[in-house]
Order: sequence, then structure tokens, then C-alpha cells
Amino acid sequence: MKELSKLMDYRPDIKVVDATLRDGGLVNNFYFTDEFVRNLYLTNIKAGVDYMEFGYKASKEMFDENKFGKWKFSKDEDIREIVGDNHSDLKIAVMADVGRCDYKKDILPRNESPIDLIRVATYLNTIPAAVDMIEDAVAKGYETSCNIMAISNTQESDLAVALDILGKTPVDVFYIVDSFGSLYPEQIARIADMYMNFAAKYGKKLGIHAHNNLQLAFANTVEAVGDGVDWLDATYMSMGRGAGNCAMELLLGFLRNPKYNIYPVLQFIEQHMIKLREEGVVWGYDLQYLMTGMLNEHPKAAIQFTKENRKDYAEFYKEVSMQE
Amino acid sequence: MKELSKLMDYRPDIKVVDATLRDGGLVNNFYFTDEFVRNLYLTNIKAGVDYMEFGYKASKEMFDENKFGKWKFSKDEDIREIVGDNHSDLKIAVMADVGRCDYKKDILPRNESPIDLIRVATYLNTIPAAVDMIEDAVAKGYETSCNIMAISNTQESDLAVALDILGKTPVDVFYIVDSFGSLYPEQIARIADMYMNFAAKYGKKLGIHAHNNLQLAFANTVEAVGDGVDWLDATYMSMGRGAGNCAMELLLGFLRNPKYNIYPVLQFIEQHMIKLREEGVVWGYDLQYLMTGMLNEHPKAAIQFTKENRKDYAEFYKEVSMQE
Repeated sequence: MKELSKLMDYRPDIKVVDATLRDGGLVNNFYFTDEFVRNLYLTNIKAGVDYMEFGYKASKEMFDENKFGKWKFSKDEDIREIVGDNHSDLKIAVMADVGRCDYKKDILPRNESPIDLIRVATYLNTIPAAVDMIEDAVAKGYETSCNIMAISNTQESDLAVALDILGKTPVDVFYIVDSFGSLYPEQIARIADMYMNFAAKYGKKLGIHAHNNLQLAFANTVEAVGDGVDWLDATYMSMGRGAGNCAMELLLGFLRNPKYNIYPVLQFIEQHMIKLREEGVVWGYDLQYLMTGMLNEHPKAAIQFTKENRKDYAEFYKEVSMQE
Repeated sequence: MKELSKLMDYRPDIKVVDATLRDGGLVNNFYFTDEFVRNLYLTNIKAGVDYMEFGYKASKEMFDENKFGKWKFSKDEDIREIVGDNHSDLKIAVMADVGRCDYKKDILPRNESPIDLIRVATYLNTIPAAVDMIEDAVAKGYETSCNIMAISNTQESDLAVALDILGKTPVDVFYIVDSFGSLYPEQIARIADMYMNFAAKYGKKLGIHAHNNLQLAFANTVEAVGDGVDWLDATYMSMGRGAGNCAMELLLGFLRNPKYNIYPVLQFIEQHMIKLREEGVVWGYDLQYLMTGMLNEHPKAAIQFTKENRKDYAEFYKEVSMQE
């Protein structure tokens, strides 16, 4: 049983990362208004959030700039338009996907950029490419994290090899990513234990990025805090791909560090997030996401079901559970 | 860390209790159609659910029968209308609230009744009255459980006294009830540990009834399973007072006993629960419930906020968090 003091007290090392624009951008193709983004930035500062992820540094060779909002590409000048010289304690992050980012060209030296943290996202079979991106970013002066995605259907022995390779890089944080929202707190505890062995060996921190398919994104994040995970991803009103993420409002209501403040978060949700919902942007827990989470599958079929506005849940269950 | 085998295997002692009519009835004043109730009964049988709670045995002296649907009173003849002689493995339960049930008169001998289980609900300050109700029900031949409500703001030493008194009664099950939806899994683990001491001493089973204010109803139920709690309350699509309860569909997706079957649950939700939602019946996680849960308060102010269709969440937070 965990110590109760962990619920009453706090660990100053905890970092809260707002991933609303990046994971939420997957819901609306990154079409956020500048007013939304500017207010989110100001709200994060007031709420004591530690990092704000603006979006992806996606390759403009691979993706058409006319088909996405600007936070798919998160150009330095667009970030600067929002944050100026960012005279605040809030640090700025972007995500760089292995194989979908022209990082050598698009990631500038940190002293020319408003960005502080490069989050490298990789699958298990592209670790060497992730290592190259980490080394590039560190050489340019950035903080870095590495998000190994889709770990719920990888073998632990492979994951151990990946963590050992990453441990030897200068990356700051290993992220536990529950891409399919299929993990239970007991599994998070075991995964955190395994990651922690490598983190301790190589002097790294741990982070968690959860999805809410089984209504466990917050519970898994709370579990991870109790297991020594310091970097916590959350999104306003859980906005994110499919069932969404750990809700920022739940997370800040849980954390006891007085630097965090839930009130501006509630204001932002009232003024901006509810409006997105009313405009027809759809995300969050629903039965189709439960099903793919429970089956440990990528939610893409569930996202399609949602887009088509289908309501034949039982039929969908047959589609996703019977694979031939 | 809990054993992984607990996620892969199952405990045959687990009992799933469908509380949809009873806790969900608090949302729509128990106005369910007979078609809904009959289909729910048949669905529970197909899904392998162990107990179906029909509603309250509320006093007809205290409550006007014209102001509530019939499941506020759960008369034996109304239950019989649905289940006949109940030739199934599904057992029938009702809830009897201390101080709001004419149990001597309204609870008939079990051999004259379709009911199997009387769930006695009490606050900590009415334990002797609960004892009398338990003894009355056991004398009439029923299985019994005792739900001690609102434990998140009681002192552990008082709770220990209550469990010791209840241990000496013939009650079968002690229920852990998170009335305000304010408890975290770590706290559930500690409470389960305390309850288990008395359960082991007196040969009782444990149950859990969770609320979803912090999106933890399912996580807390899963935690409780890992702590040896056998009786698990759930409701279809989480339907229940305020933020609702642990979702039946999540719970059956988690339990590994092959007797449980999620498919009829999904069918019922598609055919009946979605319709309730569309008819304007409102329940489930929302910010106002997060706030009262986080503040460890009864959700009544949040329920009122919901009824008034208010959307000024930040203002509501000030109302509930500043008490003079």
C-alpha cells in the first residue's frame, strides 16, 4: 500500500505538461484560433503548468500546409507570435515524430527558438532514428524526452533493450505512453517499475501520457505519481485523440503543490472548451473507445465509427472483436 | 505491487450487482418504463450479472406514490410483474434506507417474496437502527448487506466501532460506499484493509459502491477487486446520482470469469440507455461533480447546478469552495 503522505504532500519534481494543442489537435486537424491558443498560454501560466506543448514539428514535405492548422507544423515564428519572448516560468514544448519530421532543418538552435523541450515520439522499431533525433536536439541545446508509443502490445524484453539504448543517449525523460488506453493501474505500476530500473541506472526522469478509453487516464496518472513518475501529461477537458487524455482539471485538483491553481483552468474550459464542443468537435470516452481499449487495439476504427456518427455499438463490437 | 495473475485470472467469489434502477432512479425519479425494466432484467441474465437491484423499499407514509415511479417503492407485486417466479440465476435485491423504510410491514417473509437480498443503507450515526433492520431481514430469511454511506468524512475510529457492531450481526456483506466520489485508489486500498480486518474476524464479505466524480469509479472498483473486495456495484452506462457510478460495461470488460458477457450489455445500452439520454435524462461526469468530489462534499449543490442547466463553472467553484 502506498503512503498516505503522498496524497497529502507533494513532490517538487513533478512537472505538468499541457498537451491540449498537440493531442487535441489530432481531433480538429490543429485548427485552433489564435485567440484560443493565446488564452491557453496565459491560462497555463496562471495555473502553474510547467510545459505547454504547442503541436508537432511535422514535415512540410510530407504534409500539405493547406490541409492542417498551423500547430501541425509549430513553426518557431508562429509560436513566437503567441508567446513573444515568453517571459514566464512556463516552458514551451513541441513533438517530433520519428519519420515525420525534418528535424535537421526545421528544429533551429535553441538560442534562436522559443522552444525549450523537444519530445521525440517513436515506435519500438525506430529507436535508432529516435536516438539520432535526440542527439540532434541536445546538440542544439534543447531539453528532450522520448515517448515510446504503443507499448501495450510490445514484449517486455524488447522494451528493455530500447530503454537501455535510450539510457545511453543524453535524453532527459523516458515517457510511458498508453497509446491504446488499454492499461490498468496494476500494469502501469509494473511498467513504471521496469522503466525506473533504467531511469535510475542512467539518471533519467520518467513521464506518463495516458488515454481515457477505459476511463483510467487519470487513475493511471495518479498511480504513476505514486510510482515515482514525475512528468505528467494532461489536456484541458481531456481533449485528445479518440477517448482523450488525463484531464488537466482532474490532475490539478489532485496535485498538492501550491504552485498549481485549478481556477483559471475552470475559467478556460467554461470560456473556450465548451465552445469547441458546441461547434461540433467530438472527443472523449465513449463505448467504441472502451471496446478498442479493452481489446488492446489502436483506436482508429473507433475514431472512424465516431466520424461516421454511427450508434450501432453492438455491431461495432462484433467488427472489432472478430478478426480473421 | 499486485500480482498480474489477478488481471488474467478470476476469483469465483466475485458478485456483480446491477444498481441501475436504484441509483439511476435517483436521476429520473424512478420513472422507468416496464419495457426498460423487463429488458434490463433479461439483459442481466444474459450478461451473467449476479444481482439486480430493483430500487428502494421507501416508506409510503413518508413519500407520495404519485410523485415517484414505482421503483422508489419496489413493491413485491411490481417486481413479480417483471420477473414472474424468476427462474434464473440472477438474484433480486432492493435497498432499504434507515429511517425511510417501514421494513417491519413492507418487507415480507422471503418465501412469499421475489426478493433475495435486502441492502440496508445507513449513515454512521444510525448503526443501531441498521442492526435492527438487518436482524429483521435475516429473521425473514433474506441475504443482507450493509452500506455505510458518506465514509469519506467520518473518522476511522468511529468507522471501526461501527464495523465491530455490524460484525456481530448476521449481515453477509459490508459495503464500502464512496458517496461523494471523493476517494482515490490509495484510500480505497486503506479502507478495504480496515474493512477486511473486521470481515475476516466476523466471517463477512466486502462490497464496493463507487461514484464517478473524479472519473475514478471504475478505477476504485478495480483497486477494490485487487484488495479482496468481492461484491461490485455497477450501473449501465454509469447511470446514477450526479456523476454516476462504475460503468457495467467497463466492469464486465475487466472481469475475466467466462460467465460474464459484455455483448448483451452493449446491446441494451444501444437500445435503451442512449434513448434515455436523448429524452433529456442527465447524469454522468461533469466539472461540477469533479468540484464537489475534490472538496469531499455531497453532490447536492452540483445536482442543483445541473438541473438549472447552469454553465458558469468557475462561479460555481467559488460557491462550493468558499464556505463561511
